[in-house]
Amino acid sequence: MTVDSVIKDSFASGSVLRPDRALPVDPKVRSTAREIYDEVKDLPIISMHGHVPVETFLENSPFAGPSQLLITPDHYLCRMLYSQGYKPEDLGVGIGSYSDEEGRAIWRRFCENWKLFRGTPTRYWLEDELATAFGITEAPSAESAGRLYEQISATLAKPSFRPRELLDTFNIETISTTDPASCDLKKHAELRRQGWGDRILPTLRPDAVIDLNHASWSGEIETIGVLSGEDSTTYGGYLAALRERRQAFKETGALATDHGPYSPNTTPLSPAEAERIFGKRMTEGSVTSEENDAFGAHMLFKMAEMACDDGLVMQIHPGVLRNQNRSWLARYGGDLGYDIPVNVEFTTALTPLLQAFGSDPRFRCVVFTINETAYSRELAPMAGAYAAMKLGAPWWFIDSPDGMSRFLSSATETAGFYNLSGFVDDTRAFCSIPARHDLFRRAVSGYLARLVEERRLLVGEAVETARDLAYRIPQEAYAPR
Amino acid sequence: MTVDSVIKDSFASGSVLRPDRALPVDPKVRSTAREIYDEVKDLPIISMHGHVPVETFLENSPFAGPSQLLITPDHYLCRMLYSQGYKPEDLGVGIGSYSDEEGRAIWRRFCENWKLFRGTPTRYWLEDELATAFGITEAPSAESAGRLYEQISATLAKPSFRPRELLDTFNIETISTTDPASCDLKKHAELRRQGWGDRILPTLRPDAVIDLNHASWSGEIETIGVLSGEDSTTYGGYLAALRERRQAFKETGALATDHGPYSPNTTPLSPAEAERIFGKRMTEGSVTSEENDAFGAHMLFKMAEMACDDGLVMQIHPGVLRNQNRSWLARYGGDLGYDIPVNVEFTTALTPLLQAFGSDPRFRCVVFTINETAYSRELAPMAGAYAAMKLGAPWWFIDSPDGMSRFLSSATETAGFYNLSGFVDDTRAFCSIPARHDLFRRAVSGYLARLVEERRLLVGEAVETARDLAYRIPQEAYAPR
Amino acid sequence: MTVDSVIKDSFASGSVLRPDRALPVDPKVRSTAREIYDEVKDLPIISMHGHVPVETFLENSPFAGPSQLLITPDHYLCRMLYSQGYKPEDLGVGIGSYSDEEGRAIWRRFCENWKLFRGTPTRYWLEDELATAFGITEAPSAESAGRLYEQISATLAKPSFRPRELLDTFNIETISTTDPASCDLKKHAELRRQGWGDRILPTLRPDAVIDLNHASWSGEIETIGVLSGEDSTTYGGYLAALRERRQAFKETGALATDHGPYSPNTTPLSPAEAERIFGKRMTEGSVTSEENDAFGAHMLFKMAEMACDDGLVMQIHPGVLRNQNRSWLARYGGDLGYDIPVNVEFTTALTPLLQAFGSDPRFRCVVFTINETAYSRELAPMAGAYAAMKLGAPWWFIDSPDGMSRFLSSATETAGFYNLSGFVDDTRAFCSIPARHDLFRRAVSGYLARLVEERRLLVGEAVETARDLAYRIPQEAYAPR
Repeated sequence: MTVDSVIKDSFASGSVLRPDRALPVDPKVRSTAREIYDEVKDLPIISMHGHVPVETFLENSPFAGPSQLLITPDHYLCRMLYSQGYKPEDLGVGIGSYSDEEGRAIWRRFCENWKLFRGTPTRYWLEDELATAFGITEAPSAESAGRLYEQISATLAKPSFRPRELLDTFNIETISTTDPASCDLKKHAELRRQGWGDRILPTLRPDAVIDLNHASWSGEIETIGVLSGEDSTTYGGYLAALRERRQAFKETGALATDHGPYSPNTTPLSPAEAERIFGKRMTEGSVTSEENDAFGAHMLFKMAEMACDDGLVMQIHPGVLRNQNRSWLARYGGDLGYDIPVNVEFTTALTPLLQAFGSDPRFRCVVFTINETAYSRELAPMAGAYAAMKLGAPWWFIDSPDGMSRFLSSATETAGFYNLSGFVDDTRAFCSIPARHDLFRRAVSGYLARLVEERRLLVGEAVETARDLAYRIPQEAYAPR
Repeated sequence: MTVDSVIKDSFASGSVLRPDRALPVDPKVRSTAREIYDEVKDLPIISMHGHVPVETFLENSPFAGPSQLLITPDHYLCRMLYSQGYKPEDLGVGIGSYSDEEGRAIWRRFCENWKLFRGTPTRYWLEDELATAFGITEAPSAESAGRLYEQISATLAKPSFRPRELLDTFNIETISTTDPASCDLKKHAELRRQGWGDRILPTLRPDAVIDLNHASWSGEIETIGVLSGEDSTTYGGYLAALRERRQAFKETGALATDHGPYSPNTTPLSPAEAERIFGKRMTEGSVTSEENDAFGAHMLFKMAEMACDDGLVMQIHPGVLRNQNRSWLARYGGDLGYDIPVNVEFTTALTPLLQAFGSDPRFRCVVFTINETAYSRELAPMAGAYAAMKLGAPWWFIDSPDGMSRFLSSATETAGFYNLSGFVDDTRAFCSIPARHDLFRRAVSGYLARLVEERRLLVGEAVETARDLAYRIPQEAYAPR
Repeated sequence: MTVDSVIKDSFASGSVLRPDRALPVDPKVRSTAREIYDEVKDLPIISMHGHVPVETFLENSPFAGPSQLLITPDHYLCRMLYSQGYKPEDLGVGIGSYSDEEGRAIWRRFCENWKLFRGTPTRYWLEDELATAFGITEAPSAESAGRLYEQISATLAKPSFRPRELLDTFNIETISTTDPASCDLKKHAELRRQGWGDRILPTLRPDAVIDLNHASWSGEIETIGVLSGEDSTTYGGYLAALRERRQAFKETGALATDHGPYSPNTTPLSPAEAERIFGKRMTEGSVTSEENDAFGAHMLFKMAEMACDDGLVMQIHPGVLRNQNRSWLARYGGDLGYDIPVNVEFTTALTPLLQAFGSDPRFRCVVFTINETAYSRELAPMAGAYAAMKLGAPWWFIDSPDGMSRFLSSATETAGFYNLSGFVDDTRAFCSIPARHDLFRRAVSGYLARLVEERRLLVGEAVETARDLAYRIPQEAYAPR
């Protein structure tokens, strides 16, 4: 057997999706996994943490082209090409809109580098998307690039391939966007007016008004003052404005807030100290890094307090150094894929919040991070003891086949399945959403099937658990109050 | 196939234990695992780290009822119900003794929530206990709750179900209790007098006399002064009193001391500094948190020094924030299940102790923690190099099927099997002890069977290793000196 | 079945290597793994990070004896025997050369303790070496020790068992030594003159001239001054001397530098501050630990800067506390196996370096550590985004069957396979090199075969990836520039 012939033969078999993909290999476990998976594969998708812009649904325009849809906006994909020497402009990043010719060149760059993605979830999702959404049956390569480009372009032109229509095609029951505190919510209100209000929900992400040294803090503060009618330049008015914003989001359909601080510290400050730091920011234009951290911790605590009052679920996902590649940040802007996890401590950091609200029936929080070991060590023990806390993973780098499997194994033995909040897709790559949720359902089915075959669970229990994780658990975790 | 019918069919098959439970699924590996397991399953249990109170054995009374035996004292079980909104009083915690009627209500609450435990070791142990000890053949549910309660109550009434009789039934050769330095050891002495002294052993846990800011420190200090005849209000007298207590425990059968500090730091202080901090505590009633930490580290070192003299094995399990839920601590007391692991550092922390005593043939220490990653990174490398140190895991949240499997994989490739100290059950749930040790033997058999089938070990070696881990290794690790 | 008979039967089957060793157990996965492995098993070995002394190849003498070759120089092996109470002198460590009689006693000690190595990679490698290199077909034991000693001694006496001849036997295409900045490179130059210059390469390890408080710093500094002709007693001259040393190494065939700092911190200092600290060291003989750390971080940055100019690959493997057992260090010297990993932080530590050089096409760095969790959390995300960075693991305690499998699973889903740099054997146990690389190829084949059977990869892709990881990737990662 020569290597070339093996590769040729393999590719000749096409990239048609096989029904058993990402299920365990042991024949008995796989068979049980299929039995479980068949019961969950068609359940509607609830996507409560995502980044598709609201405009996508409001405008409902055709997608611009294969590269604009699948390459340029996808961090996961672009970062892998950067890692082999490509620059953002090679992939259409940071250059604004581009021509069909440039789109073809970008697409070809991606296809030529298909092998870089071997073993990664990006490969898995793309293979699924290309086959399922676009009917592609051959692997991307320099040779196939042109054909694939045509085939995808033809699909994008179809009226059935508009965003709202895809919500049906993709079986998405509910999808959340992510919106700053300064969002006037007019687009969401218009969607509601058009009858999409129960399906497309805003989520309040107030990071930029809480991080006192954030570049856009002043502008955000001014805007929330105007929107809320509160004097947001005083600490008291700022809190009142945030309360108003939460209420406005809630009235426009929001079920949750979303917090991505560097640290999970939740230690409250005295009102006087919080007021002092806020005042210093107003008068001096910035605060020390220690003051900012202390204020951020304080505000997590205050937001939990507000959540007790208005019932919005508090999503917290700390532990990431954003935009580590500062030279590219300056040159190309943010969100390039250089957000690198850090090993933050959760047990003492979350103590103030959990002590105050962890057993309060009015409070609900969903916590996740990218540090795998924090789950078995800190997060699962806490989620397995506090009524208010659920685990929102597998997330980000661990929403991969093996990553999910490790997460399920290390978190659920301690926290059980009923202290999870369901799958977090966290993506702006709209077309990847079904593949991601499907992969989670496969991973869950495979994990539960193993428990069944290890005689640790009955198959009926496994089916019910899989269905709950796919649908009922996220629905209840974010149920309106 | 409807979900309901699947669940019904599964439950209809009953929760009768299957002989292959928790063994690997691959047919060849499972078959080899069974071969190994059959050689170890009937070996006597050595339980050198547990929390069954000595009174249980001295009084040897019938257990009060199903809930008093199986629900109320079991942290693992209760914490899962708290995580879904139940309060301690719903489970009989913190309310003193309760009526049979209340016991039935508590039992029903548990049975109704059986599904919460899916995939957890609590489910696994309970299924085993219910079947093995009580002959239960149906799953707990709202419907079956009453029948199960009757069936368990009937068993509890039998003379053969008294604690001492269960030591035989459970095949427990040796069991250790955990006792404070202030324990007068009269109950253990009485057990010895009655001929149980080789089977039920005290273990000295001096945490409360070492933590200078512990709520009961003053009382403990006074008591050890009286018991030892030393002036424990001076630093020198305090050390002398601890030496006497160690000796008294040893003479009453103790083989070990047990240390649960927050930090594994073992840096000794100068005698003058130690004396200063101790003196400050005596005169001022408290010390700073830094002083307390430094003194605690110092005392770990001193206890190791004493262990060289008297040969008691030193068990150290740092890295847990005790009673994180302070509001419930104030309301219901401690030991509710809110002890949450933290990521403590071991390599530099243990350096002073290992440098001084790690190669000393008189010293023996058993180290464990709940941070899984510390094993492959820090603890296994040290246990695999220092003659004095052994690993006492899998422990606590990782004494689960997958947790054990991960532990064996990540620790034994570096430390080998002969630097472990055997299984630590660490439980006050007396009836769960056989199920826990049995699960460890299954996990070990499964892991070794995989090595055999991966051609990394011969089956005879695997059998010997499994037998050693179950019996000979713990026996030798704690052998009297 | 009695245990004794089982063990006897097993040993009777001999330790002859089985072709499927260390491959997955599932029959389909194993079969696919064999298919992949067969395509890579005979590829030449590229060993770019090792510690065989250059003298071994220059002198090309017969090895002194079984214990001198296989026991005394092998940390992995000795540390396990220390962990059970043996002292260095029992294994020939720290006692200089020893007699054949003493060699026999040492060998017997090892053979008697064969069971300690069960489940460890040392056992795996030794079994492979003993069978492959020495034709041994029985397990080491007290009974077989003498026969094995004779058999190995006979092999060592053969002309075909000289180091250079073994390079062919072992199929080693390229091997790197590790050499201090003070190395005059005469031995490597002589090897080049003899035509071995493309096969045996020096690697510059400048740790001792960067660590200002290193015991041999002054001597090293003096020597590099002499070798380079620069005034290495000034900061500017020191940098110039290092540049010269890099150039000299490069001209003698070096492709890389090697850096083993405690911390991965890469924060540069101002030239004035660097000069101040360097000057303080020159005049006062030492600097504070903080100054030394800051200078070390600065020098990592400077070395990266120099690497941009000369193209040498920068290997960085932080996070180990060297010689933790200080009492034995004082008594027996270093390198005893008491180098214990610590949990260091990478994301913020590497930020300065990656920000400055991470996307610079002239820069190449290979990063690895022994903290498994750092891969999925920090290192794989960075290697999967920066063009300059590759992952140099599995390394050290994780170059074991399960360790490799965990590494592949946790790193490659994020970084892909093409951001690895191939296998790092990092050994001075020359005869173990083929077994180590073979084990890596088996682990890779097994991992890829599972992806194939989980329908995540085509078999042709798996074969190409395995071949790339074994040969092409390390070749390209270190390609001369």
